[in-house]
Amino acid sequence: MSILYQEGFDPALIARQEAIFHTANGYVGVRASLEEGVPEGVKSIRGTYLNGFYNLRPIAYGEKLYGFPDEQEVMPGVADAQTIRLNVGDELFSPFTGTLEHYSRTLDMDAGVSTRNITWRTEKGATVRLTIDRLASWAEPALFLIRYRVESVDYEGALTFESTLSGEVRAYADPTDPRVAPLAVRHLAVEKAERREDVEVLTLKTLNAQQRMACAVGHRLNGRPAGRLSAQVRPGEAIVLEKWCAFRDSRRAADPAQAAFDILERAMAEPIDAWFARQRAAVSAFWDRARVEIRGDEALQSAIDFSLYQLMQSAGRDALSSVAAKGLSGEGYEGHYFWDTEIYIFPFFLLTDAARARELLRFRHGILPGAKAHARVMGHARGALYPWRTIAGRECSSYYPTGSAQYHINADVAGAVLQYWHLSGDIRFMAECGAEVLVETALLWLDVGHMNGDKFEIHSVTGPDEYTLLVDNNYYTNVGARANLIGAVRVMRALTEAGLADGVIAKTGVTPAELDAFEDAARRMLLPYDEERGIYAQDDSFLRKKVLPIADIPRDQFPLLLNRHPLFLSRHQVLKQADAVLAHFLHEEGVDEGAMRRTYDYYEPLTTHDSSLSPCIHGIMAARLGDMDKAMAYFRETARLDLDDTHLNTADGLHTANLGGVYLSVVMGFAGLRIGEEGVSLCPQLPGGLEGYAFSFLVGDSRVRCEVGREGCQLTLLEGPPARLRVYGEGVLVTGTYRFPVRSK
Amino acid sequence: MSILYQEGFDPALIARQEAIFHTANGYVGVRASLEEGVPEGVKSIRGTYLNGFYNLRPIAYGEKLYGFPDEQEVMPGVADAQTIRLNVGDELFSPFTGTLEHYSRTLDMDAGVSTRNITWRTEKGATVRLTIDRLASWAEPALFLIRYRVESVDYEGALTFESTLSGEVRAYADPTDPRVAPLAVRHLAVEKAERREDVEVLTLKTLNAQQRMACAVGHRLNGRPAGRLSAQVRPGEAIVLEKWCAFRDSRRAADPAQAAFDILERAMAEPIDAWFARQRAAVSAFWDRARVEIRGDEALQSAIDFSLYQLMQSAGRDALSSVAAKGLSGEGYEGHYFWDTEIYIFPFFLLTDAARARELLRFRHGILPGAKAHARVMGHARGALYPWRTIAGRECSSYYPTGSAQYHINADVAGAVLQYWHLSGDIRFMAECGAEVLVETALLWLDVGHMNGDKFEIHSVTGPDEYTLLVDNNYYTNVGARANLIGAVRVMRALTEAGLADGVIAKTGVTPAELDAFEDAARRMLLPYDEERGIYAQDDSFLRKKVLPIADIPRDQFPLLLNRHPLFLSRHQVLKQADAVLAHFLHEEGVDEGAMRRTYDYYEPLTTHDSSLSPCIHGIMAARLGDMDKAMAYFRETARLDLDDTHLNTADGLHTANLGGVYLSVVMGFAGLRIGEEGVSLCPQLPGGLEGYAFSFLVGDSRVRCEVGREGCQLTLLEGPPARLRVYGEGVLVTGTYRFPVRSK
Repeated sequence: MSILYQEGFDPALIARQEAIFHTANGYVGVRASLEEGVPEGVKSIRGTYLNGFYNLRPIAYGEKLYGFPDEQEVMPGVADAQTIRLNVGDELFSPFTGTLEHYSRTLDMDAGVSTRNITWRTEKGATVRLTIDRLASWAEPALFLIRYRVESVDYEGALTFESTLSGEVRAYADPTDPRVAPLAVRHLAVEKAERREDVEVLTLKTLNAQQRMACAVGHRLNGRPAGRLSAQVRPGEAIVLEKWCAFRDSRRAADPAQAAFDILERAMAEPIDAWFARQRAAVSAFWDRARVEIRGDEALQSAIDFSLYQLMQSAGRDALSSVAAKGLSGEGYEGHYFWDTEIYIFPFFLLTDAARARELLRFRHGILPGAKAHARVMGHARGALYPWRTIAGRECSSYYPTGSAQYHINADVAGAVLQYWHLSGDIRFMAECGAEVLVETALLWLDVGHMNGDKFEIHSVTGPDEYTLLVDNNYYTNVGARANLIGAVRVMRALTEAGLADGVIAKTGVTPAELDAFEDAARRMLLPYDEERGIYAQDDSFLRKKVLPIADIPRDQFPLLLNRHPLFLSRHQVLKQADAVLAHFLHEEGVDEGAMRRTYDYYEPLTTHDSSLSPCIHGIMAARLGDMDKAMAYFRETARLDLDDTHLNTADGLHTANLGGVYLSVVMGFAGLRIGEEGVSLCPQLPGGLEGYAFSFLVGDSRVRCEVGREGCQLTLLEGPPARLRVYGEGVLVTGTYRFPVRSK
Repeated sequence: MSILYQEGFDPALIARQEAIFHTANGYVGVRASLEEGVPEGVKSIRGTYLNGFYNLRPIAYGEKLYGFPDEQEVMPGVADAQTIRLNVGDELFSPFTGTLEHYSRTLDMDAGVSTRNITWRTEKGATVRLTIDRLASWAEPALFLIRYRVESVDYEGALTFESTLSGEVRAYADPTDPRVAPLAVRHLAVEKAERREDVEVLTLKTLNAQQRMACAVGHRLNGRPAGRLSAQVRPGEAIVLEKWCAFRDSRRAADPAQAAFDILERAMAEPIDAWFARQRAAVSAFWDRARVEIRGDEALQSAIDFSLYQLMQSAGRDALSSVAAKGLSGEGYEGHYFWDTEIYIFPFFLLTDAARARELLRFRHGILPGAKAHARVMGHARGALYPWRTIAGRECSSYYPTGSAQYHINADVAGAVLQYWHLSGDIRFMAECGAEVLVETALLWLDVGHMNGDKFEIHSVTGPDEYTLLVDNNYYTNVGARANLIGAVRVMRALTEAGLADGVIAKTGVTPAELDAFEDAARRMLLPYDEERGIYAQDDSFLRKKVLPIADIPRDQFPLLLNRHPLFLSRHQVLKQADAVLAHFLHEEGVDEGAMRRTYDYYEPLTTHDSSLSPCIHGIMAARLGDMDKAMAYFRETARLDLDDTHLNTADGLHTANLGGVYLSVVMGFAGLRIGEEGVSLCPQLPGGLEGYAFSFLVGDSRVRCEVGREGCQLTLLEGPPARLRVYGEGVLVTGTYRFPVRSK
């Protein structure tokens, strides 16, 4: 039973709870704002979002140089259907007036429902019990439902609802925080408000992107259509208002208003309970595939349940959408998709839900035109350069040193394609989408890099560590580029052998000479290594910089990005997040064990973890290096980040990459799962403090369960043909159940 | 006789001519806009500017990181007193209507007057001759005069003037050019418009900086006060409208309106001819000191006359102002002061006008509080970091990679102070201002750099070449920092010996240990040198980058900054402007002759000269290396830049650094003058194509004339005690006239 429960009403927590308890299904996301609204001055970010739906906003610059993007795609808050006001007689319900006898929020991750339970006494002394359930349907992604039940404890009289659908929505803004939109702009204008039968349909148009979204809303009172949303009650009696909402947008439907109306009508043909039942079934199927069990620590179990549930709520369901940095839980980072998806989130879907994983890759394939255009702007004659942040393919970063300069995103996207290929062997998909991505990204590396003597070097890029800017030969970037180049060659070879290469060659224009050059560049790739220290250098210059003694800096100065100029940070040995350490997580082939350990030991004390993308990787690599206590400590930090709001900005939305990191911490950290050219390998370990853990994963057409406990490890074939794995480096064919003892390093 | 004359009326040239023919005196600058205005759609940047007077404008960012400036000082166009409309009967004069029989513009650089001569026939057939003189008084900096003479050729009837003073002024903007303001904002609002006696006084207030400026305007018709500005004429008769304008601002006067009124009243107590005579006298005195004669090339003579005249028009007269990138001739670069002043312009004033040179240094001393605040923002506990672009001391760059990252500005300012010290030996000034600048800038170097092994290194800065960003150990920067550190130590020693050090120690808090550290850092300063090529490396990474074959790029792609992303440029070996070559111009001590030549030969073909700060330095260094043909070619390019509008943006204002470069080309290029610790040295050469050249210069309390011709070289003591110089490396004491043959390398 996975339930998150928080009791008590604290106005200071409203915005954070809006994210934590939000309801979403990968398409519609609704923050858990209060139906009744909040008084002025109380922080609330009221928002409903549609994945992949965007407005264009002009970007202002003090000095605009060539190639700086003119405009930015922004995920706007769309029509607001959350508002329901309840009148108890002539007294309007608000937790800020009267007496709150009980107030709690529940996220029922088995039912797929977010609930508020409230017992409220009016100023005149009438007591009512409210149960407000919300659901964003996993079965019908357009559908969002509110079931608002009011029970009279001691009140006799009228209960009246005012339920609205509003197109007056502004973006939340904070000009002092670069991670949030700078201006409270308006993104949408009402185009049409109609009433069709007893359904209200509101169509909004984006101000600059020429897109539309529509929301259709219908009501039922006590399960029946009702003219006036009002009823008389006596003590012990209850009434239930159902608010049915369907959302559709013009990227998915030619006539969003009609589409929303149609969906709503079909949905309302059934009783609301049917949709709650369908939700439970869909969520249950998800847990069957995706559950990670943690034995011996309930807090961690609920944290991992929360993380996986939120990943599923956040992830796009079609090729028009992906996973935003805050999912559909808030407006932070303006709804943009980053490398977070491929590095932190994709493996969860790859290992549990092949169809969803494919859609995430199709999204990247679909924005290749934008990535090619971006490459041209950046001065590259060939290839595609994925935008650092985007919704529909445009580069949306207005600050290139930690935006477009992060060329590694190409390797990250290519890496996800290769993981899919290695796990599935799905050559049709590679012919259709995957190989084109690999070749276009590889062509870019060939153009951006150059031979210096006999080494292939890549200059003037920024690696994952955003505190170190515009460097030459970032180790992470070069290692990733090498894998990208090699992967493109190998996949093209496989396609050629299968007679499927022609389409890719036609689309990319790649020549045999270019494929040879890929191999040559990969072979000669410069990987900076410091002989004296015996570690991989983050880049050509990092190890010559001043060390920043971060232990001496007061805690209130973190994250440093809010308190230090980027030049100051870039001049010092200080990391925002895992960089060379992340490289060793993703690409350990050919890396000497000692060098890997020394590299970890060198960079870890220099790392602030000011990015939420950092602790999980350090935990995974601690496990990789056998330090399970450290792995466990990082896992605890990772697991509780949003639940405990340790970054103090969960109000702006959940940290989806970190949520993915929670999954990775167990599966790739403790269980040591890796996906490589030879398939899946495992090196399970059991940290002290846990009794065990278990999860299942896809490999080829099979599904395998992995259980690790004090008594040993057990692999069980759940579905499909016998599965070939490597366990502690040895080949294993899992046919039924395979047991072996757990090793530690 | 120095006259610039352009005949013919071309609407496309109006904006350019507004800059070329503008009138200024270091305080007031008035673009040579047409009194009668232009029709809509014709490009004109109508502007009047007050040096050092600014508004604050908020800076917009897509992503604002810590330390990015919130607002920018901007030199606004102030109250516009240029407008005079002439009615010939009922026909309004405009060169766009009727028939222009003659149209010419004259800049009389002996009289200090800018004139338009026009013969115009109205549509009805009346012909008038206009002579419109303008003068920004060099004797009374607040004063700007227009003398508008109309002579009837064949017309009989009324001539009527409408003369206005307007506070409705907007900034010129071009959102596509980073060198120009992005938005046509309004900087000023009318605070008060008064009439005092027959004088109109308009007070404007800046919208954000809480400053005021006032303009007082009075008129005379035919030398007398007049109620209506109208008179009857017959053929052969003429009338003259005098428009007297006085400008004052609240940085210089507590009550600018009263101050402007008082100045105007005093000025108008004399006939206008007296002010024209006084102007001629002031200009004549300037030429006595400053003239550079070029024998055998009239075009070059007029170009150098033009350059020096414009420098004098541009340079601030008090410690509140300096020399803006466009002087007072336009709004390009928003009126900001850059390093241009110290490196390109200061030597002209230093060698010809000690008082003005001192004011330029006092300006830098005066903004030390801003520079210290900037250093703190950039993370430095000690020292001052001069803002890259500023008016009153704030860092005004919104793009730090080519803004605040150009730490070399500290060395540039310190270098100017040291030049003054070496030339003048003025220890009082050093005690009062100079040493504080040297110590504060040196303290900054100590903080920004660090010891790496036994070398002092400076990381994450941008050198003069703005196409190469955020590098380690930029040679120019490190060489300049070294001179700055040594200079601070030596001047502090001299002050200590003279018993004058206490004030500086009290103000800066500099300790003996810090002074020792200055010396140590200077001694260990890393100067990147490439053994293989035998050249100085621009920085640690430059020589590892890809070479950009600039000869293959079509000319219409230049300047590359308008057609290539900064990351692309930074990834390549390509220079915007002189960098290591500039270092060798300023600091040749200890540089081997061969290395200097190889360095020049290596970088020159990689240099686009996309900055107007580049060709003059290449010419000077070509002369230094004995290639006089190349020196002469660069000199010609430098000399004609604005006159021929070779950068296609003279309309936005003159390139004052390049104007200074014209002077440097002769004095430091051909004559090889340098100012060092041992005073002034000369190595005169005579390029082919010139008969000779001559100029005078200050050295200590003396003034020396240097004449170079086919017959040899001659140094003459014009004023003061015998002057010690070095000529071709040999010490010389100039007492009367000293003759010697010209050498070539």
